[in-house]
Amino acid sequence: MPETVRKLAAVRWHSGEPLDGGDTLVVEEPLEIRLNGRRFTATMRTPGHDELLARGLLFTEGVISDNDDIEELKVTSLCRERSNELVNLVDVTLHDVDSIPAHLWERSLIANASCGLCGKASIEALSVRVPPLPAFEPVPPAQLLELPHLLRARQELFEKTGGLHAAGIFRLHEGNIETLAVFEDIGRHNATDKAIGLGLQQGWLPWETAEGTLVLLVSGRASFEIVQKALVARIPVVCAVSAVSSLAVELSQANNQLLIGFVRGTSLTAYTNTDKLGN
Amino acid sequence: MPETVRKLAAVRWHSGEPLDGGDTLVVEEPLEIRLNGRRFTATMRTPGHDELLARGLLFTEGVISDNDDIEELKVTSLCRERSNELVNLVDVTLHDVDSIPAHLWERSLIANASCGLCGKASIEALSVRVPPLPAFEPVPPAQLLELPHLLRARQELFEKTGGLHAAGIFRLHEGNIETLAVFEDIGRHNATDKAIGLGLQQGWLPWETAEGTLVLLVSGRASFEIVQKALVARIPVVCAVSAVSSLAVELSQANNQLLIGFVRGTSLTAYTNTDKLGN
Repeated sequence: MPETVRKLAAVRWHSGEPLDGGDTLVVEEPLEIRLNGRRFTATMRTPGHDELLARGLLFTEGVISDNDDIEELKVTSLCRERSNELVNLVDVTLHDVDSIPAHLWERSLIANASCGLCGKASIEALSVRVPPLPAFEPVPPAQLLELPHLLRARQELFEKTGGLHAAGIFRLHEGNIETLAVFEDIGRHNATDKAIGLGLQQGWLPWETAEGTLVLLVSGRASFEIVQKALVARIPVVCAVSAVSSLAVELSQANNQLLIGFVRGTSLTAYTNTDKLGN
Repeated sequence: MPETVRKLAAVRWHSGEPLDGGDTLVVEEPLEIRLNGRRFTATMRTPGHDELLARGLLFTEGVISDNDDIEELKVTSLCRERSNELVNLVDVTLHDVDSIPAHLWERSLIANASCGLCGKASIEALSVRVPPLPAFEPVPPAQLLELPHLLRARQELFEKTGGLHAAGIFRLHEGNIETLAVFEDIGRHNATDKAIGLGLQQGWLPWETAEGTLVLLVSGRASFEIVQKALVARIPVVCAVSAVSSLAVELSQANNQLLIGFVRGTSLTAYTNTDKLGN
């Protein structure tokens, strides 16, 4: 098992009194992803499920369109040259690395229009590779309100460290809730990519069946990036425990998705396709 | 004034009852930064203070070492070709664009060592361009506990939207607290870059005087990236309202910085250089 939390020395100051002791922190380490030997990207993440993170990231960013695009995926976790030193590397060999659009290798990830950047151009750029979602079964608010509890019950690292993002994918069908994936990570986008990576690996993403409705729940805010990842994975409902951004709403609206924020206690706020809130 | 919040239609579902109405959301829009005409990076941010964001980002990422490296900085907010369409573009002209290290143009921002990536290599890579911090005046915990209140009092957008990051820079000196900068943004790194960009523009960053101690406070978690930005700006104390990561602690420790998490109510937890907690 990779190290996901670490106990470190700490001084806790409470009501004027210092108290020496330890504190359990979430581990943050860089992960590099290479494509056919060339460095593609690096992300700061919590170790664990690196293969899923790589699959999910490559998929949601449009590098691969399914698992079969990958010829080989190799996770290296120890350095050969410097013994016992931690290395965080996923070596991915693609069948056809030359077909990757050149702009994906650049650091400015957000596609732009000829006359400059705007939110509308970002939405248009995504629509080139991802069509709007098909119709889906309405989801009952009462069931959506259960999801944060199901997520929290699986947030083992949050319990230990008091601060970590989580993303879960759930299937709602005929009154039942099925938890398909829950991942925690120091980065919200990483937790989401790991969950989507699992779906891709196991074959239930991108979502294509009409049996039930898939919901992505993130423990924090939902921004453009989170909605984009869900759209690429064909997940029709995105829920956030906290706020959503204006651009997340615009992207969701343009793609027939249901976007919901502030899913807390007995209430939630739906911003797009609110007719999909069932009973 | 740029649009920072936007009222959108929403359905609030509370205790089984739907309620049509509006909700105020934080605006998220892409910003592109060009260096001497070439696209350098793009970030999703809340509009406003784009010049400071660009200055801060270029500084904390090592593209510029001070204001004088910039020959001209031009913010474009409306497109000429398509009338009235929002464009989010900062055109920066550097005196010497050719001296920028080639890897800064690549999408993998995290420096790596020859044998692969690890947290230690990330810390070593930063030490090449940023030396450890000099000694600084101890800071009283009672004063640090006041900072979240000072930050919150200036978080106008959070009050309206219920979900937004904030970063503030404060100066503690002889029992006084001076608020030097507070910015809000959908991205925590953007809020921090805007605050640092202001300090750079006004000339009080990088911090060089021994009169008082500078503190960076972020409203959420402190990860490697936040500590790195503070180090580049020579800010000796970093406080987070929420948790800190293992790598943030390691980077802070290696550079004589005081790193504190969970600054809430009457308590806080210090992870590095805890002898710098004064009375």
